[in-house]
Amino acid sequence: MNRLYHVALSPFCRKVRLTLAEKKIEVELVEERYWDPSPDFLRRNPAGKVPVLRMDSRLMAESQAICEYLDETLPNPALIPADPEARYEVRRLCFWFDDKFNAEVTRPIMNERVWKKIRKEGYPDSRAVKSGLAAVKFHLDYMGWLLDQRRWLAGDVMTLADFAAAAHLSCLDYISDVDWNRSANVRDWYAKIKSRPAFRSLLADQLPGLPPSPQYALLDF
Amino acid sequence: MNRLYHVALSPFCRKVRLTLAEKKIEVELVEERYWDPSPDFLRRNPAGKVPVLRMDSRLMAESQAICEYLDETLPNPALIPADPEARYEVRRLCFWFDDKFNAEVTRPIMNERVWKKIRKEGYPDSRAVKSGLAAVKFHLDYMGWLLDQRRWLAGDVMTLADFAAAAHLSCLDYISDVDWNRSANVRDWYAKIKSRPAFRSLLADQLPGLPPSPQYALLDF
Repeated sequence: MNRLYHVALSPFCRKVRLTLAEKKIEVELVEERYWDPSPDFLRRNPAGKVPVLRMDSRLMAESQAICEYLDETLPNPALIPADPEARYEVRRLCFWFDDKFNAEVTRPIMNERVWKKIRKEGYPDSRAVKSGLAAVKFHLDYMGWLLDQRRWLAGDVMTLADFAAAAHLSCLDYISDVDWNRSANVRDWYAKIKSRPAFRSLLADQLPGLPPSPQYALLDF
Repeated sequence: MNRLYHVALSPFCRKVRLTLAEKKIEVELVEERYWDPSPDFLRRNPAGKVPVLRMDSRLMAESQAICEYLDETLPNPALIPADPEARYEVRRLCFWFDDKFNAEVTRPIMNERVWKKIRKEGYPDSRAVKSGLAAVKFHLDYMGWLLDQRRWLAGDVMTLADFAAAAHLSCLDYISDVDWNRSANVRDWYAKIKSRPAFRSLLADQLPGLPPSPQYALLDF
């Protein structure tokens, strides 16, 4: 059985979970307490990060490297198109979300509102939360602008860029930090992606002591 | 003429410069003062980051997306091999350096020792520098361990992973923060890569008011 060592509210793990589910690859999910690393954890990935995928007794780390590998070896359905210009745009947007959006929005908000609570590290720093909530507006506007011109974020077909973006937004949505009224384009896009069978496992996530916001699992939100 | 908007001591710009030079694509280098962004800079890349490559009147951002695009459209010489397992390993290591090494080593050290000075933002925080200098030892050991088993970082041929790693180490070497005596493997690997024609442009970099350390441009260091 394939196994994914993950953390439920990690956008990087969610991108891999969506990719695996879209390609109908079953995995056993194993929750990793990465902030309290065991020697086994560091043996699996010396970088000390999740996700780590064990597949055919091989261990793989780094979400983007894993997703590219899955798309190359299991190309049906393709999440990265064949044309080099289109591939560039998919990757540019994956990095947009995994680097810029993560640094400006996901990491500060989730650190303050979720991880500090779970690790019992004190109270949220409201300045960091405010800065994340201010930045998310710019990002929603940018997504809205892209979706004015395209059906999906990177073009006219759904790609890994949509999964990267949805992975981040779904973590924020779990704690109710997305204003879905800001852009009708973005809400429609998220409704489409949220209703895919690949999304079901994410919508079933429940953190002990931190239940999801009421709209989190609703397809009509 | 192709044009690369860059910052001389950015590892991400250096990875792209090495890739372009290895593929013999000439570019005009335009220094970008990204900390004092002009409207033109944000029009070129709404993410507000370097590098940005203008090629055939097209603008491209995100170093990894640019390098993958260049390798797909100009495959000679290939910097990412054809086999999916090998491609995975190249990408895993690119992210190792551009994410982990950058966060633990390059960013803290360069911020404190270079960028604060250039932007006139006060004195270096010695705790951040110390933490970076402690972390670089672990990374040099990891590289040494990989190079015990392989001729190059990701396998038996030179790949984009070697350029990613060399891009980071060359920035640190400019300010003399690499202990080349720690691992003979790593020193030999860096000597090999440093002697390539693609490296020459990097070795000629000179920052006003911040000359390189004496060994920076020496092939025998």
